[in-house]
Formats: sequence, C-alpha cells, structure tokens
Amino acid sequence: MKNKPIGVFDSGVGGLTVFDALARACPSESLVYFGDTGRSPYGVRSKRVIVEYSRQIAGFLQTQGCKFLVVACNSASSLALEEVRASAAVDVIGVIEPGAAAAVRATKSGHVGVIGTEATIRSESYTKAIHAIQPDIRISAVACPLFVALAEEGFSGKPATQLVAEEYLAPLIEAGVDTLVLGCTHYPLLKSDIASVMGPSVELIDSATEVARVVRDSLVTRNHHSESKAVAEHVFYVSDTPERFARVGKRFLGYQVAPVHLVDMEVLHGAVESTEPRR
Amino acid sequence: MKNKPIGVFDSGVGGLTVFDALARACPSESLVYFGDTGRSPYGVRSKRVIVEYSRQIAGFLQTQGCKFLVVACNSASSLALEEVRASAAVDVIGVIEPGAAAAVRATKSGHVGVIGTEATIRSESYTKAIHAIQPDIRISAVACPLFVALAEEGFSGKPATQLVAEEYLAPLIEAGVDTLVLGCTHYPLLKSDIASVMGPSVELIDSATEVARVVRDSLVTRNHHSESKAVAEHVFYVSDTPERFARVGKRFLGYQVAPVHLVDMEVLHGAVESTEPRR
Repeated sequence: MKNKPIGVFDSGVGGLTVFDALARACPSESLVYFGDTGRSPYGVRSKRVIVEYSRQIAGFLQTQGCKFLVVACNSASSLALEEVRASAAVDVIGVIEPGAAAAVRATKSGHVGVIGTEATIRSESYTKAIHAIQPDIRISAVACPLFVALAEEGFSGKPATQLVAEEYLAPLIEAGVDTLVLGCTHYPLLKSDIASVMGPSVELIDSATEVARVVRDSLVTRNHHSESKAVAEHVFYVSDTPERFARVGKRFLGYQVAPVHLVDMEVLHGAVESTEPRR
Repeated sequence: MKNKPIGVFDSGVGGLTVFDALARACPSESLVYFGDTGRSPYGVRSKRVIVEYSRQIAGFLQTQGCKFLVVACNSASSLALEEVRASAAVDVIGVIEPGAAAAVRATKSGHVGVIGTEATIRSESYTKAIHAIQPDIRISAVACPLFVALAEEGFSGKPATQLVAEEYLAPLIEAGVDTLVLGCTHYPLLKSDIASVMGPSVELIDSATEVARVVRDSLVTRNHHSESKAVAEHVFYVSDTPERFARVGKRFLGYQVAPVHLVDMEVLHGAVESTEPRR
C-alpha cells in the first residue's frame, strides 16, 4: 500500500496546480494525474453528469493501483465528492474543505469572497464548508465563467482579462471582502489580474498548497505514506489531445509534463463497473 | 419518408443559428435538434473524439426517424463528415461546403479570411473546400478560441470582446481579405463586434442561410421534402443542462426553444450500435 501512487484528477489541465503543490509537499509520493480533456470543462455541467464522469475516473485511477484519490477540480469536489467516496475503496479528498479552512484562518473582517465556475457557485459548497467551521462568516460568491477560457488561452496580463475581471469582481469589491477564495483550479493562472483588480488589502486563497498539506497529513496519520527512497515517478493520463494537455500544462507549471497517455472513452465508461455494477 | 423530420446537430447551442435558418427556409419541415451540451465544446478536441461523438449523435437522430442529417457544427463538419456519412443510412450534409461556396461568390479580390475553432482551422477544411471550387483563391485562416465562450456568456458588444477581436483579427486586416467566413456557429452572435473590427469593406459570411438553402434544394431534388400542410413541429434534445440550453438558446434566437429533452449519455454510447457494431 505505502508505495502505491496517489491519484489526482481534474476536468482537464487546471488540477495541475494541485499536482504541483502535492509533488512539492510529498516528494517521495508517486502521482497519477488524470485530466478529462475529452469532456472538459465541468463548470457548465449538471451534478448528474459531473457525478457520472467523476465516478468513471475514480474507477480508472483505482485500476491503476492508487492508494488515495484527490479530486483536484472544484466543480467535481462541489458536486460529486460524496458519490465518489461512496463508490471508492480508498480515501478521497476534495479541494473545497481545505480552501474553506484557509479562508477562515485568513479573514480578519469575517467577510469572505468566493469565485468559481457556475457549477461550483451554484452548489454553495464553499459557503457550506466555511459555515461548518465558523457560522457567522459573511460570504459573497460570484461565478466567473470566462476565467477558465482566458487562463487556458494564455490571456493573463492582457487588457481584455483586466476588463472581464473588473466586471466580474465589482460586486466583491463593493461588498468589501478582505479574503477571496480562488475556487477553481484555473484561477491561480490569473492571480496577478485578479490581485490588481481586488487591490493589495485582499488576501487571495489558492487551495492547492492547503490541499497538499491535508493529503500529506492524512497519509502520515493512516501510516499510508511512501517510505521509498527512490525518486517518485509521475504519470499523466488524458481522455483526449495529449499534445494540447502538454502544451497548456507547461503554461500552468512552467515545466514539461510527461509521459502523457491517452485513455479511450470506452475504458472510462467501463471503469465504473470495476467498483460498482452499473444500473 | 417525406413527412419525417430533419435532424440537426451541434456540440451545443451554436447550431441553433442553423436550426433557425432551416426553420425559416423550410417552414413545413419538422426539425429534431441535438446539442451535445454534456461534452461541448468540440473545438478543442481531436478528430478521434469528434468522430466518436458525432457518430453516436447521428445514430441517435436516426433512431428518432430523421430522413436527413445536418451537421450544424463546423468542428464536426471539418473532422467527422465522411465518417458520419459512411455510417449513416440517410443523406448527411455539413456546413463547410455551403459556407465555402458563399465565400467564393462573395470575394472580389480573391483573398478570403476564415475564422473558427482550433479544430476547424487545423483541419484546413475551408481551405480545401474553397480550393475545390476555385484553386487560385488566397486564404488566410485564424483560430479564435475565446469567441465561443464570449458568445455563450453574452459578451457581445462589450469592450473586452472588442479587444479580443482586435487581437485575433489583426493578421486578417493586415492580410487585406475582402471576405471573412464566420467558420463557427457561435460567431454570428459576435457579428457586430467582428464587423466593427474588420470594417465595412469586408463581407462576413454566415453559412447558416446558405446551408438551409442547400438542404431545401437537396430535399426537393430527391423528392424527400415535406408535403404536410400542418405546422411543422420542432423538438430539442441535449446531453446535459436543458435549462441552460434554453436560456443560452434564447440569447441565440431571440425566442424560446421548447420542448428540450435530456438524453442519457449511455443512450448515446448505445446509439452507434444501431447503425454499426462497435469494435
């Protein structure tokens, strides 16, 4: 068990921000990353479809021998975490609770902003997670659907991104939040654009480092952490366009991701059956 | 046969521009529209995946009794038309050839611009189709990946869209095209933004009306056109989020689309088997 890999999955390339934080926090853990590039983005989809896709991927990662699963996608963490947990034979964590905990620690005024995809904001997952820790925190949440495309297309730092950010974030500035949760794994790529609109007095919370810390602690607590002295090996799977994943992934991480393997959609459809019979 | 419906499909909501043109050009034809909203957009995907999805949808539309199929998605028309034709038992047309024909008729200088998704531009489908008609036409083609998101999020007429359009279209202005093919069904929603950047001397080609004319002529030629005096009935199917489809669809058409039915992904996976056994 101890030397088996950790599985990390996302709707596409965005979860690489979590992958990177994990690789730094747990350098002796091998990681298997899955990006659902044949069906991304998840942020515009329904709970029903996000649950279906997430369970398929969790099934696939278990067939790859993963000892632990990280749902590195805010939309999937918001809408499918319970269902993935219910069908998985290994521990599963998402990105919402760690991000919520970091926001609660950071806020001084008790007024937190949350930005994310339509699916994440509609689910109110951050509001619930923050209120579970501290019920009297005020929360202002806004969906920023164009941010994913702007991040993927390399529009950080461009005037168009500044204009879009000003429009989306105006209600949060108006509301006077002192902390802003970047509730989508793509948004750290637009961190400087978002920071320049929000101003220096607002702290931005990127849940990736927090997630990595929780995973590391959780593995140690359960005595499931790697004891290998060998260099950890990472492998990447996608459901489409491995070359685009590698290209955009390099924009995310600043280094090359490899090897990237293609997984046939039929394999994913079959993967759910490995943990639970289909209806 | 004559009173059976015409099937129209797209990766999502964009093909409604073609649906609308067809409904106007062929008022006695019933239409069955399918939007693959659980797996859109197609413009970033590979040929392999676009072929797989398109064949499933073509199979589904045939189970709905369609007498004729219109691939109202430029990415699918560019990359999957032959494969859909090969597996379909009815006639199939795409949007590339009608758009190419309209561009050839429109250009006076013999220099045509084409804009579309990454998948459409990479396929060079418009270049091939235009050169099949008139080999000496010069073509300048540019992918505009952010346009789909801007159109769907209602950003037409906003300054951010103007900035993005200026950046994408600069090489086409530089090249001096006199005709510009809007090679993605979403782009007519940004027509005024694109026109203001290109200037009044450039003619914009929206293939929807041209496609509708070709479909009508083709049905009449084969004596497959409807002879019903009753009002045509239209029905819409989607693979996810019917309420979002209805909301964004209204932005496209200016009127309500209904009824919108949800099709389970497993039904789509099974639909290919109805026309051809799976590997």
